[in-house]
Amino acid sequence: MSALELSVLVLAGGSGTRFWPASRRRRPKQLLVLEPGPGGVDRSLLQATVERLAPLVPPERVWVCTGASLLDEVRAQLPAIPAAQILAEPVGRNTAAAIGWAIDALPAAARDGVLAVLPSDHRIADAAGFRLTLEAAAVAAAERDLVMTLGVVPTHPETGFGYLELGAPLGTEGALRQVVRFREKPDAATAAAFVASGRHLWNAGIFVFRPATMRAALARHQPVLARGLDAIAAAPERLAELYPTLPSISIDHGVMEHLEQIGALPLTCGWSDLGSWAALAEILPRDASRNSLRGDVVAVEAHDNLVFAERGAVALLGVSGLTVVRAGEVVLVLPTARAQDLRLVVAALEREQRGDLL
Amino acid sequence: MSALELSVLVLAGGSGTRFWPASRRRRPKQLLVLEPGPGGVDRSLLQATVERLAPLVPPERVWVCTGASLLDEVRAQLPAIPAAQILAEPVGRNTAAAIGWAIDALPAAARDGVLAVLPSDHRIADAAGFRLTLEAAAVAAAERDLVMTLGVVPTHPETGFGYLELGAPLGTEGALRQVVRFREKPDAATAAAFVASGRHLWNAGIFVFRPATMRAALARHQPVLARGLDAIAAAPERLAELYPTLPSISIDHGVMEHLEQIGALPLTCGWSDLGSWAALAEILPRDASRNSLRGDVVAVEAHDNLVFAERGAVALLGVSGLTVVRAGEVVLVLPTARAQDLRLVVAALEREQRGDLL
Repeated sequence: MSALELSVLVLAGGSGTRFWPASRRRRPKQLLVLEPGPGGVDRSLLQATVERLAPLVPPERVWVCTGASLLDEVRAQLPAIPAAQILAEPVGRNTAAAIGWAIDALPAAARDGVLAVLPSDHRIADAAGFRLTLEAAAVAAAERDLVMTLGVVPTHPETGFGYLELGAPLGTEGALRQVVRFREKPDAATAAAFVASGRHLWNAGIFVFRPATMRAALARHQPVLARGLDAIAAAPERLAELYPTLPSISIDHGVMEHLEQIGALPLTCGWSDLGSWAALAEILPRDASRNSLRGDVVAVEAHDNLVFAERGAVALLGVSGLTVVRAGEVVLVLPTARAQDLRLVVAALEREQRGDLL
Repeated sequence: MSALELSVLVLAGGSGTRFWPASRRRRPKQLLVLEPGPGGVDRSLLQATVERLAPLVPPERVWVCTGASLLDEVRAQLPAIPAAQILAEPVGRNTAAAIGWAIDALPAAARDGVLAVLPSDHRIADAAGFRLTLEAAAVAAAERDLVMTLGVVPTHPETGFGYLELGAPLGTEGALRQVVRFREKPDAATAAAFVASGRHLWNAGIFVFRPATMRAALARHQPVLARGLDAIAAAPERLAELYPTLPSISIDHGVMEHLEQIGALPLTCGWSDLGSWAALAEILPRDASRNSLRGDVVAVEAHDNLVFAERGAVALLGVSGLTVVRAGEVVLVLPTARAQDLRLVVAALEREQRGDLL
């Protein structure tokens, strides 16, 4: 695809609490170093996202959309990306607004090429495999003017993700299939049926399209949003005033679900959304006692624990199946099996007005 | 006992690891505030020991023997005790040396009275009851020239303490009994037999005697030690050189076990040696979920935990039966039921030459 200019938009505005207390309002998951980097160089999930692209998309063609409060840190983490390509939303207005705004910010050459939209907080073990699939999607998007999505081949009946339901093959290349429906997070039985059917992929939030095509789809399916983006394009100095007025809707709900045709390619590249401490524990290397220990940790007669200590020292004696996190001035202790319930702690802190810890 | 001058020697030289990481080499257990103090005023175990005595023995008649490395902190914690009465051993040489050295340091009036030797790291719930028994022991020591010991009426067949085996009553007052033997820490069956017999008390390391009597006993049963103490008394400026040469032996083994007659009075004053985090958990107040939480703690769906956080914040989710300690830069997590095995962690740190954490 030498003639095709592929640009990438990395969405890095997210905030979340699933890795609290390592993640905080001012330091969300994508800015964290959650696992040791290859070659002994630690990389945040955001840095790894950009680095993974490099052989296919150099930093000069990478755009990042983040929140104003994260801008300095994002710039510091991505010095190779031109500062003007790191866009700061005054407030988060969900993915449809972010993608539309970024499209309008692209230079003409990039607008005439293909844009891939990627989350910034996922893990991909096989970067080369990921790039091959991304490149194939870009070719399909360019040649067929298709909005493409990359879906992850499910490895288990996960109830925490949305699914893409696949339809007929598109063309003769076999792997390229039509997306029939976007399915919300299913219950356990439905998830099992999805996985058994072989016709469902996890929705990983990865989309590839010609910018003009997506912008037109936005205008058709989200006209209020599109007009708001037009107003910003006409008066960029009024961004802080206008951006907060944009409708807040996801690209999935706002556009993708309304499209007549979407193409999908399956990803089999060791993908993980790293959605919880338990998910992190799954992928980290373990010692002989099946402990994953990061930081200054002494473990005695302890097994199957995850310790994530950004500072200080942690000593474990005789415990198993625990996650112990030490970040900033906070220590968190929970059974790893209950990682999905971490929101209960965050809710308790919010009730007690402990914003200082969030 | 208005005519009797009762002085107290508090032994505060001990170091230990049972409350690691709250206790450290430079901050042993007796200097820690382990429970909230009455009236909202926190007191270390050492401070509580001295305060408990006050109605019976004012600070002007309290002597403290500690280690040189702890001297500044002990002085700071006990400002009411004259500085000259806080004795600093150049090195620890066990209790016989400490007691003998302190006796030699007493002024004439105190030497002619009665001296009570007390540990500095025990908890006593009923201070008034304790003082009554101590006063009775002092009267017996003075009137009969007896070496007395206060033993704790056992509440369970503890294998972690030594026992005093009682013999015939002494005199007509009923409670005063002869000590027949000092028994080492028993096995479980023996401990059960001791408790069932009604003739055994826990050895709490509390002794009451006329100083001249004890000094004579030292000369008779530990002549090398006594001569060393004589040399120090003759040349106090050579303390740093001579003290380390003293034989290291406990007052129990070195003197008490050799005496022909020892009197004992039973203590029933809510005594605890606070020998572990589990022992502390036993006596601390608990919330509705049976958690004892000290410091800035958020507990969600967590019960029967002990959290001792000297700094920072601790969040628990869904755990039970754990002890979580945060002191200095160290976090410790263990099942409370395994508190007795904390030495395994300390041993691991010693093996790994982590003196910085000890």
